[in-house]
Amino acid sequence: MKDIFGKVDAILIKSPDENFFYFTHYHGMWENSFAIVFPDKIEVVAPPLEEGKAHFYKNKKEMESLLKKILNVETVGFNGVSLSYNDFLYLKRLLKVKLVDVSKELKYLRLIKRSDEIAAIKKACRLSLKILNETEMEGKSEKEVVYFIECEMRKRDALPSFPTIVAFGKNTASPHHIPENKKFVTPALVDMGARYNGYCADITRTFVEKRGKKLYEIVESALYLAIDEMREGVKAKEVYKKVEKFFAKHGYKMRHALGHSIGINVHDGYSINENADFVLKENMVFAVEPAVYLKNYGIRIEEDVVIRKNRAEIIR
Amino acid sequence: MKDIFGKVDAILIKSPDENFFYFTHYHGMWENSFAIVFPDKIEVVAPPLEEGKAHFYKNKKEMESLLKKILNVETVGFNGVSLSYNDFLYLKRLLKVKLVDVSKELKYLRLIKRSDEIAAIKKACRLSLKILNETEMEGKSEKEVVYFIECEMRKRDALPSFPTIVAFGKNTASPHHIPENKKFVTPALVDMGARYNGYCADITRTFVEKRGKKLYEIVESALYLAIDEMREGVKAKEVYKKVEKFFAKHGYKMRHALGHSIGINVHDGYSINENADFVLKENMVFAVEPAVYLKNYGIRIEEDVVIRKNRAEIIR
Repeated sequence: MKDIFGKVDAILIKSPDENFFYFTHYHGMWENSFAIVFPDKIEVVAPPLEEGKAHFYKNKKEMESLLKKILNVETVGFNGVSLSYNDFLYLKRLLKVKLVDVSKELKYLRLIKRSDEIAAIKKACRLSLKILNETEMEGKSEKEVVYFIECEMRKRDALPSFPTIVAFGKNTASPHHIPENKKFVTPALVDMGARYNGYCADITRTFVEKRGKKLYEIVESALYLAIDEMREGVKAKEVYKKVEKFFAKHGYKMRHALGHSIGINVHDGYSINENADFVLKENMVFAVEPAVYLKNYGIRIEEDVVIRKNRAEIIR
Repeated sequence: MKDIFGKVDAILIKSPDENFFYFTHYHGMWENSFAIVFPDKIEVVAPPLEEGKAHFYKNKKEMESLLKKILNVETVGFNGVSLSYNDFLYLKRLLKVKLVDVSKELKYLRLIKRSDEIAAIKKACRLSLKILNETEMEGKSEKEVVYFIECEMRKRDALPSFPTIVAFGKNTASPHHIPENKKFVTPALVDMGARYNGYCADITRTFVEKRGKKLYEIVESALYLAIDEMREGVKAKEVYKKVEKFFAKHGYKMRHALGHSIGINVHDGYSINENADFVLKENMVFAVEPAVYLKNYGIRIEEDVVIRKNRAEIIR
């Protein structure tokens, strides 16, 4: 936060933007709402439909005068990757302030998790693993497995972090397969995660019998190779390159990033790929998902890890 | 569409933007993907993770050269309410074209539904009504009713169009109540809707016993007053004003808009409020939701309607 407040006097977040939840912790719809973040306090400006502490406005005129009154400062940060072009023009005209894009700083702020965020992600992971363990696939279609998983989430006060992927047989060859009525055969891939209290898990398992067993072991080795490499001080792209090299040795190529930061979003801003120049720091949280896709099937294994000083801890 | 192509040679939509689905009909994640809409064809540029017809790029350089090659025109429309400020600057630098905001035209294009869209909304409404009819509330908590409804949606290949609202007793006094563990008492309000095949329903029922019965009848009258007023050629704000006047006669005031267009989004762009200057046209679809909120409870009733030439048809 020091990073940002060295540059601007306040940060203006307009919903929908996950940073609205990040700063306010407010669930709900919060349409046409603003979070105004100061070093020592947060003000919310919103229409009077939500539950929470806010300056509620009845019409546009009231909204505008509230924003102008609260933002009585010189420079205001905004999230350039989320604020729309039209909203930018509108706010620029309305507020007589200097608007500064702080999207990079916000993204980095979100990368290093607070302890309450790590606790929330842990809960989401544990809930997801529990449901995964209870999931029966034999005799079911891909869609039926998806419905089971997502219903179980809902019953436990959670939502899917992303549309659950269930892929059987040849369908595992596609990284983002859309579940259909195909009946269970192995390899069987489940990529799922609960969003609980606003935070996401992202876990993949591939179940193999004979076919794919050898490849499974290679992908599993890649997973542990990556996790063993991850700790404070290591450049993310170095981890990627190690795994890439390992796969290359076996004649395989990675088709997507090795992993990504998770948090309020399942893809929370940073990718672990060949260009990932950022350095791993304590309390970053990643999904690590090495995968190999062949013509007739694919294997992906994904765990969520917290970076500690000397190691990465698989969330269990 | 003529409207738009009189102004620009092509429209560039960057995901996430619901217009990506509107034009391509592609489900799935489609991160960092572009739909490029010409009068006679649609081109998609995307990373190679999705299933569908697209120009798949492996890296940023490939993406940029594809975009430049396909957008070999003079003026390109973009969606100013969705494209982020940073993406606008990026695309402006990349493409040597004139960028024109066509957000108003896109919003209006979406307001008048194609017949396949009306059919999809009908399916979503029918599914929602079916689930509502099967919902038992006695003895259950607000959250338990939400879980039942959303699981039933999931089992039938649908998702919630928005977080289901269930409010019992005093909690009905808040328009956007967040469900909690409160046990069933009347008035009991359920505001729900399925998204099926990409299209939304939005339906509210309030169940009353003695308390609220009189107010229920007033709100119900307001609903039918509104629907009877809606037909091709009528200004939306005139409908709002009729209802506002009717409520005022009974000593009540509206706390939110009378309704909103529905479609791919549950709030699909247009509000029926005191400033709604647009004219109702055939094949527009709205959720109509008159409501009165008192200190201790509230009543809201909501139906989805299609505008026809001489009337509005409640979707059943």
